[in-house]
Amino acid sequence: MSHSDIASEREITARAVNSFAHTPDARLRFLLQKLVGHLHNFASEVELGEAEWFQAIQFLTATGQKCDDVVRQEFILLSDVLGLSMLVDAIEHRNGAEATESTVFGPFYISGMPDREYGENMALIPGNASLITGCVRDITGKPLAGATLDVWQTAENGQYSGQDVTQPHGNLRGRYHTDEHGRYAIRSVVPVSYPIPTDGPVGQLLDATGRHPWRPAHLHFMLDAPGHKRLVTHVFNDDDPYIDSDAVFGVKDSLRVVYQPRGASDPLASQFDIGTDFHLASFDFVLDTTA
Amino acid sequence: MSHSDIASEREITARAVNSFAHTPDARLRFLLQKLVGHLHNFASEVELGEAEWFQAIQFLTATGQKCDDVVRQEFILLSDVLGLSMLVDAIEHRNGAEATESTVFGPFYISGMPDREYGENMALIPGNASLITGCVRDITGKPLAGATLDVWQTAENGQYSGQDVTQPHGNLRGRYHTDEHGRYAIRSVVPVSYPIPTDGPVGQLLDATGRHPWRPAHLHFMLDAPGHKRLVTHVFNDDDPYIDSDAVFGVKDSLRVVYQPRGASDPLASQFDIGTDFHLASFDFVLDTTA
Repeated sequence: MSHSDIASEREITARAVNSFAHTPDARLRFLLQKLVGHLHNFASEVELGEAEWFQAIQFLTATGQKCDDVVRQEFILLSDVLGLSMLVDAIEHRNGAEATESTVFGPFYISGMPDREYGENMALIPGNASLITGCVRDITGKPLAGATLDVWQTAENGQYSGQDVTQPHGNLRGRYHTDEHGRYAIRSVVPVSYPIPTDGPVGQLLDATGRHPWRPAHLHFMLDAPGHKRLVTHVFNDDDPYIDSDAVFGVKDSLRVVYQPRGASDPLASQFDIGTDFHLASFDFVLDTTA
Repeated sequence: MSHSDIASEREITARAVNSFAHTPDARLRFLLQKLVGHLHNFASEVELGEAEWFQAIQFLTATGQKCDDVVRQEFILLSDVLGLSMLVDAIEHRNGAEATESTVFGPFYISGMPDREYGENMALIPGNASLITGCVRDITGKPLAGATLDVWQTAENGQYSGQDVTQPHGNLRGRYHTDEHGRYAIRSVVPVSYPIPTDGPVGQLLDATGRHPWRPAHLHFMLDAPGHKRLVTHVFNDDDPYIDSDAVFGVKDSLRVVYQPRGASDPLASQFDIGTDFHLASFDFVLDTTA
């Protein structure tokens, strides 16, 4: 490679960056100029070949074409498996050291799910019974009464209701509320690990790179309370075999809980009308104050 | 932003890079680990917000969905307007200082177009007549007989035959060949500037950033000769108003030619049976030896 080759490649990058110099919106201008710089630096550093570039074009095209208007968003899935979604989540939620940590929202939330009573069972198909309880507090430790916990998880087949249309409406979904002591209680089934969809370009990427598609078992939470920042997070099963290799990098140590086995004669079983052996987990949330 | 925020963001990036460590193909492993690093560095440097990230997801999805199997490739267009296509072209064609410079291939080439005689008119619809002639040589200056020049350009409406289905088959396309002295001659119409397609996400990007969609007038060439490297390039009209602001950054100074006006009584007009005033351009090509 000659000096003139390097100079002409740098000239192409400079021209491309400069082409966005008259973008009216200052933030868009900044984002695009930085994006073009990083994109070109990548191509230059790896000496990206035409055939490799064309493979990337075909991969991105197929990723866009795998998306539909309802449940499948392959570009979010791509962002997830590249760790970008978790990085953006971390950037968005800086400065909240005292609050419960956030994690990715994921593509499977549905709004407008049923309101649930304290301790109500959201598993409309019987399974491996669970109870998860705890408290929602502010950063000073004060319990928050009337906080909302919008919750969703997969069924034991690894699919969410909505995604799996054979499940009853609202199965393993619902909006719980804290009592006057800031406490919540959710009857459900123990979450299971499940693979992200692998029948598209992202699945091919994982396959070509020797990566598995599994997410460790978890329960999704979106918490809201007046005067407090919304918290989107998961609570992960501590003993899951994929807890250290989540395909989308969502696990944080502070979000791990142990589901402990309890017998059908446990006092909690009768309090919550469980009627079988079950697993009990406990997790407390802390919400940050609205800035 | 606290030190622990920065540490946890770096940890996310390290995990994502490391997730590709067991990719069997060494080149793919290298490309993906570098890609993830650069992508995360971009997001960290600009402090990419969730709403901005989601706009990008929607933009990329729309870009993929604008592509069809026939003529429209919106991701190549995106790569073109970000200068990436030209950078990859430059990286692919390093070390060829003595040979004619290359430029982007573009999406409008069609293979299997008619073979044309020396000086044959490829403009099947009359227009602003042109003649372009020159010599094809190797890097020692020796003329190359029997070299093929596969040529394509837009009609005066700014559209290529194939893209514009109202044009006759093979209009402004064809495969010319050099004579025993390495010379070629192409009768055509003077190329015109034209806009890249603006009815998709790339058009929205140009609009939002105050960029015009025009390419300066040019004639596409793909040259082949036994024992020599294929050359894909353009020859640009020197006096085009967009010569310094090509939307896809394809112009190189060495590829500019002047079309000079000539009268109908010029000896070349009778030699090539032109019959009207015309414009004459001259361009010599140099092909590199196969490595």
